[in-house]
Amino acid sequence: MSLKLTILGCHSASPRVNSHPTAQVLQIKNHSFLIDCGEGTQVQLRKYGVKFSKIKHIFISHLHGDHFFGLIGLISSFRLLNRESELHIYGPKGIKEIITLQLKLSNSWTNYPLLFHELTSKKSELIFEDLKVEVHTIPLNHRVYTNGFLFKEKLGERKLNLNAINQHQEIKICDYQNLKNGKDYILENGTTLENKTLTTNPPAPKSYAFCSDTSYFEEIIPLIKNVSCLYHEATFLKDKENLAESTKHATALQAATIAKKANVKQLILGHFSSRYKSKEPFKTEAQEVFKNVLLAKEGETYDIL
Amino acid sequence: MSLKLTILGCHSASPRVNSHPTAQVLQIKNHSFLIDCGEGTQVQLRKYGVKFSKIKHIFISHLHGDHFFGLIGLISSFRLLNRESELHIYGPKGIKEIITLQLKLSNSWTNYPLLFHELTSKKSELIFEDLKVEVHTIPLNHRVYTNGFLFKEKLGERKLNLNAINQHQEIKICDYQNLKNGKDYILENGTTLENKTLTTNPPAPKSYAFCSDTSYFEEIIPLIKNVSCLYHEATFLKDKENLAESTKHATALQAATIAKKANVKQLILGHFSSRYKSKEPFKTEAQEVFKNVLLAKEGETYDIL
Repeated sequence: MSLKLTILGCHSASPRVNSHPTAQVLQIKNHSFLIDCGEGTQVQLRKYGVKFSKIKHIFISHLHGDHFFGLIGLISSFRLLNRESELHIYGPKGIKEIITLQLKLSNSWTNYPLLFHELTSKKSELIFEDLKVEVHTIPLNHRVYTNGFLFKEKLGERKLNLNAINQHQEIKICDYQNLKNGKDYILENGTTLENKTLTTNPPAPKSYAFCSDTSYFEEIIPLIKNVSCLYHEATFLKDKENLAESTKHATALQAATIAKKANVKQLILGHFSSRYKSKEPFKTEAQEVFKNVLLAKEGETYDIL
Repeated sequence: MSLKLTILGCHSASPRVNSHPTAQVLQIKNHSFLIDCGEGTQVQLRKYGVKFSKIKHIFISHLHGDHFFGLIGLISSFRLLNRESELHIYGPKGIKEIITLQLKLSNSWTNYPLLFHELTSKKSELIFEDLKVEVHTIPLNHRVYTNGFLFKEKLGERKLNLNAINQHQEIKICDYQNLKNGKDYILENGTTLENKTLTTNPPAPKSYAFCSDTSYFEEIIPLIKNVSCLYHEATFLKDKENLAESTKHATALQAATIAKKANVKQLILGHFSSRYKSKEPFKTEAQEVFKNVLLAKEGETYDIL
């Protein structure tokens, strides 16, 4: 199954009627991870049919408003909807104080477990892991402490080659798990059957790197090398490179340069400044150096292959 | 000139695609007062053409999310728009801490003067006054500390009756201000001209009372007596009176009863629970006891006569 990325908002700074600030949902294995949560995200979730109950982990890149002002409202609505399951929030130190202060002053503490995982490290770290998925931070270079996030499938089990296995009546169903785990099989006569003659490789794990907000920052390249899909901010076009630099944002050309140097398979551009009416020039500019470029669009779901 | 009330949101609890939480703009004299600021208010302001620069005073009734989660975003957008003029925030104690904590952690202090007027009194108090307008709190009965707000025009100057004045050549233009202020005029021969023979009454001052959120609370009646227009919350219909009572909200019938007892000229109902698809039953129910009822509707502007 592919990963699926749904864009709820992909514009920078102030929300407008048809351009919302950053928020997106990544479906990976059984998870629906919410990444950033600008003002209005809960309405965008409803608008695009993302079930609230699916969201158990929210990753906040940084504490600029266009990336988290919708979080307190979403947390509050979960309470009104009688949520019971845990909600995990990953974000910069301070986020817990902001949220709990508001819950305290409104006398509206959640009736479900609300768990904060505050981030302070300037080095990449593993912040979530289960049997099938890992999430690592990608330290970015912005005006305040900011992390991108790398979502990686783990390498799955090897696939049974039943045609090959059925040649050997000695191999029973109870042996299958060992084969899936990569073990060789030793027949009663002492012959070793190499695992690779009985199984095939698992599908290549897919990965998604979310990098916003950041200036052009080559230090992220080793962290995102070869990812299936990179979402990189492109607030400006290259004619505003000076403005990008002073505000610690990136241009479409810079995002594409990172994509090329990191050898990613696909690049999605977003976090567009509202000064641009047409987004097509972002694609054109990026394709000068990297071909497989998509433009983020609100409400669209992208298959990450 | 009439007062004008624009409804930006009139629903309770969670925002949805077409039903936004409480926010409204009152135009009174030269002011555009923003009353409450639920999530998404800044987008609603844009959608309904309210100029950001007109807003210099924001009144927040209480610290439940559906009445103020949009405030931090609006304050931030004012900064991005390079606002220079003062912004005054009136609201419960704690609001300053919430806003300043977020500005501090996002390293985004405003470049315009942001002035908080925190409220703690449980008695009505005068919180704003200029030459033409007064604003008083209306302490309400809700689950947390809550104020409604009473906006009153001051009695204006008396109007000159130029036909009458022109009968007396002695009266010069430099005397007009005294006449507007209600003074009698003494002719050189010693005769006193009563002011009312030279001027007419100023227009009756108009007033608007915003009362949300609150249970049925008769203590507000003396404060809102005879107002031109009362906005009173009606979260539920009367068949949910018990739920209204336990959540400290009101029914349409209760709102209308307050309107009748306070002898207001017009009642606008709002703060509807999202459980109701049709709002017409609110009007029908209220009109059992008070005839001049309107239903708040997003995007509508009401003339208060």
